[in-house]
Amino acid sequence: MKIPAMLLAIGIAVAQAPTAAVVSPEVAADRRVTFRLLAPRAAQVTVRAEWMRAPEKMEKDAAGVWSATLGPIEPDTYSYSFSVDGLTTLDPRNNRIKNGSRGPSGSVVDVPGGLSHEVRDVPHGNVTAMWYDSPATGGTRRVHVYTPPSYEKGSARYPVLYLLHGNGDTDAEWSSHGRANFILDNLIADGKAKPMIVVMPYGHTVPPNALATETRGRNTELMEQDLLKNVIPAVEARFRTAPGPKNRAIAGLSMGGGQSINIGLNHLDTFAWVAVFSAGVGGGGGARASESFEARSKAVLSDGAASNKKLGLLWIGCGVDDGAMAGATQLAAILEKAGIKHTFRKTEGAHTWRVWRRYLAELAPQLFR
Amino acid sequence: MKIPAMLLAIGIAVAQAPTAAVVSPEVAADRRVTFRLLAPRAAQVTVRAEWMRAPEKMEKDAAGVWSATLGPIEPDTYSYSFSVDGLTTLDPRNNRIKNGSRGPSGSVVDVPGGLSHEVRDVPHGNVTAMWYDSPATGGTRRVHVYTPPSYEKGSARYPVLYLLHGNGDTDAEWSSHGRANFILDNLIADGKAKPMIVVMPYGHTVPPNALATETRGRNTELMEQDLLKNVIPAVEARFRTAPGPKNRAIAGLSMGGGQSINIGLNHLDTFAWVAVFSAGVGGGGGARASESFEARSKAVLSDGAASNKKLGLLWIGCGVDDGAMAGATQLAAILEKAGIKHTFRKTEGAHTWRVWRRYLAELAPQLFR
Repeated sequence: MKIPAMLLAIGIAVAQAPTAAVVSPEVAADRRVTFRLLAPRAAQVTVRAEWMRAPEKMEKDAAGVWSATLGPIEPDTYSYSFSVDGLTTLDPRNNRIKNGSRGPSGSVVDVPGGLSHEVRDVPHGNVTAMWYDSPATGGTRRVHVYTPPSYEKGSARYPVLYLLHGNGDTDAEWSSHGRANFILDNLIADGKAKPMIVVMPYGHTVPPNALATETRGRNTELMEQDLLKNVIPAVEARFRTAPGPKNRAIAGLSMGGGQSINIGLNHLDTFAWVAVFSAGVGGGGGARASESFEARSKAVLSDGAASNKKLGLLWIGCGVDDGAMAGATQLAAILEKAGIKHTFRKTEGAHTWRVWRRYLAELAPQLFR
Repeated sequence: MKIPAMLLAIGIAVAQAPTAAVVSPEVAADRRVTFRLLAPRAAQVTVRAEWMRAPEKMEKDAAGVWSATLGPIEPDTYSYSFSVDGLTTLDPRNNRIKNGSRGPSGSVVDVPGGLSHEVRDVPHGNVTAMWYDSPATGGTRRVHVYTPPSYEKGSARYPVLYLLHGNGDTDAEWSSHGRANFILDNLIADGKAKPMIVVMPYGHTVPPNALATETRGRNTELMEQDLLKNVIPAVEARFRTAPGPKNRAIAGLSMGGGQSINIGLNHLDTFAWVAVFSAGVGGGGGARASESFEARSKAVLSDGAASNKKLGLLWIGCGVDDGAMAGATQLAAILEKAGIKHTFRKTEGAHTWRVWRRYLAELAPQLFR
């Protein structure tokens, strides 16, 4: 095989050249998806995508390329990974990655078709990675910040949604995999949501590998300190934010949903808008989780009328196939008992990003009204 | 094994729990690095890091965890990957990834120790992902933009360095892997570089898999259009940039170095500062590459005195172990012959990010003086 001189000159390893023809994933116009992996020495290769209940076998061709064509698949964005003789691996030909605090969990494929998070030909906002001092956690931390398309075009101040991720993710995933920026771009372009800033902080304050039951409470406490004392002041110093609780919302998914309800409900003078995606009273639900939640939020729950005056919206969403439904149902019951107005949306779906992108698209239009 | 309820509730797959104890990479105080991979069914596992000439074998323990402890290693940031029975794979326990336009090429490990790109306790600038319309390439494109720590604190305008990546990378790699933002943070904090904006555009305008010799010229042409007509206007409309060529620099590595010299030298009314990292007249050098370069830049080369009046700096850097040295040497000779003042730095090193981070740290203090 002849290697073009320019490949040598620019340092591309010769060994990569033969795989250049392997394209994966490939999404056809009929929404069938083909995955391919060059693995000539493997005995068995499977692919597992977010839409599957079990892995699908792939077939090897004479060149050692394994492939599987599946579908048609419902339009959405899905993560997937290969298993090569038992070893889980990403798709080496795909630079779309679902990363996280403990390492990457999959590659990502888009099956387009009228999705709320597609990149449309509308004005786009920016996503800024910002580093800030966090005395609360003892170090330099990073936060991602979405600013709406109009941000640079004037001197207006904007309301802020603080949007928290789940266990195992980082401050990058709400934009990279959750596509929060494109969801907001589209809602704003369609006149459905008010232009807003979306702040996506990092929700692990203890090492994410240590996030067992015994450290979860500590993580939420430190997150509360970091958010209130470090993140919000840093954001309000560097971005043009509108002041006061009516201009601040807090929402989160899973672990971040627990943080949102625990921090938000107990700080209604900071956040008038609170939303919980796929989470509830904490843990897997149960009587002790309810008791613990009620103890923590005693002051707020004891005066529902006062809370209702401060709240713009308290929104809970959970999928019927989600293990978090028990805890979410308990949370709704506690709020009901306390006379605190709230919306409890039971939707289709499980504990996945497919649900959370839709929740953001449903929530954002209701904020700051 | 008992699975904590909260793990179930938040949707962490049970299958992941046993691997939670595998830590990789681990960097000891004596700068020895341990890599680990759980692969009980594998027959042979090796690791290859950027500092190695050949892969190192790993050893399997009773739990099926392969490991290798290497070093002490010279402080720097290195990419690495595992080979599992011939399949190249990332480190599943490490969320630091060297990504690129054709897929991820490795995981990343830091061996700290007085590096110009370390995260120090100094004020940090932001890195903003911005989307813009690119009629030149026919779509929506993304660019990464570093703004210095002082940017939000006033209304000053800043000079701009346009910093281009190499073949196979994207607009994200100069900050994510090249750590351009931390390099600038440190130089600015130490008073060594003027506060500046660094704009990192996407340098592939034809599909990166098609970037063979025949499409490289076309890629540079389209990149020139995109940069001059789309990127610069978008940046100057949304960021507070200082006007005129004396406030614009263009630099790039490898493919981006070729773009910098071809675009920069022919647009000295736009860029007064031009730098070329690990590149030269194009391709692997040779008489035809020189001829082609001289033909393209005929007007500039025919009047060295006029060019010298416009140029603040023309800087070429190349490592003595870099295959691009021939082309870089030819470029320097052509400039010499034309009487165009330039700096040609022959340094240690090959065609790697280890060199390019140092070049940025050496170049930035010389700009906009």
